[in-house]
Amino acid sequence: MKTIGIIYKPNLEKIAKIFEERLKKERFLVKFVTSTISSTFNGVDVSLIIGGDGTILKTVKKLNSPIIGFKGGRLGFLSSYTTKDLDKFIKDLKENSFVEDRRSLLKVYNKHIEKYCLNDAVAMKEPAQKMVDISVSFKDGEFYFHADGVIVSTPTGSTAYALSLGGSILLPNVNAFEITPIAPQFLATRSVIVPDTEEISVKTNYKILLILDGEIVGNFDFFKIKKSDKQIVLLRPKDYDFSKSIKEKMGYGKNFFTQVR
Amino acid sequence: MKTIGIIYKPNLEKIAKIFEERLKKERFLVKFVTSTISSTFNGVDVSLIIGGDGTILKTVKKLNSPIIGFKGGRLGFLSSYTTKDLDKFIKDLKENSFVEDRRSLLKVYNKHIEKYCLNDAVAMKEPAQKMVDISVSFKDGEFYFHADGVIVSTPTGSTAYALSLGGSILLPNVNAFEITPIAPQFLATRSVIVPDTEEISVKTNYKILLILDGEIVGNFDFFKIKKSDKQIVLLRPKDYDFSKSIKEKMGYGKNFFTQVR
Repeated sequence: MKTIGIIYKPNLEKIAKIFEERLKKERFLVKFVTSTISSTFNGVDVSLIIGGDGTILKTVKKLNSPIIGFKGGRLGFLSSYTTKDLDKFIKDLKENSFVEDRRSLLKVYNKHIEKYCLNDAVAMKEPAQKMVDISVSFKDGEFYFHADGVIVSTPTGSTAYALSLGGSILLPNVNAFEITPIAPQFLATRSVIVPDTEEISVKTNYKILLILDGEIVGNFDFFKIKKSDKQIVLLRPKDYDFSKSIKEKMGYGKNFFTQVR
Repeated sequence: MKTIGIIYKPNLEKIAKIFEERLKKERFLVKFVTSTISSTFNGVDVSLIIGGDGTILKTVKKLNSPIIGFKGGRLGFLSSYTTKDLDKFIKDLKENSFVEDRRSLLKVYNKHIEKYCLNDAVAMKEPAQKMVDISVSFKDGEFYFHADGVIVSTPTGSTAYALSLGGSILLPNVNAFEITPIAPQFLATRSVIVPDTEEISVKTNYKILLILDGEIVGNFDFFKIKKSDKQIVLLRPKDYDFSKSIKEKMGYGKNFFTQVR
């Protein structure tokens, strides 16, 4: 793990420079330091992404290397360190002391597009459009929603938009997708969890927006979703534990047992 | 598929008798017709259970044969026919035209007990008890709840009590458990979906009720849960589709596309 790239959120240039200097001082080869990724970067052993989950989402599909996310303040779900953990990170880097956290991408396609996303595919009406009739079908069944839209998310995306709409939290290693309606009529509000071996078809009665990882890709009334062979690799410190992110970000309980154990 | 047992909910004795007569007329061997199961029944190719999901839950663990559920009115999640489908059922039975729907049981154990359940293990304070501190831990993490209790459910149980508490709907073939807090403090209300390869430990700061498939088994402050090797086999008509039960029972959308397709 010798050659390193750094990608930073524009307002975090200062921190990126601190990282660059420190890494050089520690005799690592920093091949690029950039805030704009326009094409696939290659030729580094690892890419450091300095920014939040949004910055990671935007850049990670363009990178071929494993990535390590650094977030200001508290941890994000995709970040492995906060920007204050530089010393600890340098130590882990020297000892190559990481665990691989592999996340699968979704493939979203129809006859016009073939795209990939890490968190979710959101099919959603535009504000001026009427509510839409949606069919979500797969080998083992079909559901219908009269709603503003529907989200199909990976376990990674289950803590993103789907969670805001009432979805469950899927641990990253659950082999499933989560289907969550957006503002459905008729109380059909629950998420449906389906095996990730299913190929999901989404059909609507007119064209609505298709948004992948927050990026609008067009207006469609039909597309399919399946698990892709493509994965991204997040490097995590060895003591990383997904449930910590949940507890930190969501106040998901605290350890009441410290006094009684 | 020649020898048949019939178990019925006490208030459905009349229907059980109609089933028995018809089966005998069609030259099947009816080995027992009973409303009380006190020990394991053996020696039949299939057991018909006339009653709702509750009757099936109560009896299925005592049976060694595949089962077919018959419910009055609408379908339950575990029933395969309504009691009005006798003709269709006889036809399917003669042609042996069923699909096997296998459901795994949970094993729930500590040093005092070893029990099995199909839907869920519910750990819950008694009404006069104070809220309880709960730790739910497994290899990949640990969550804490200050709550009235917690439910660990199978995909089968995801449409039972967990659903009433805001959980998601897991298709039967998802390899996961659902952990759902009961009346938690601090807004930690979402279900957490974990792979069914995990062994889950539930620890509480004093003894509360442990309820398996609706049956109280004792008061404990510690127990473990894992997927059991034991499965039950539900026989379904070939056109059965789980999403139909959801749509029928929960008004989960209707097909708006009938006019436009």
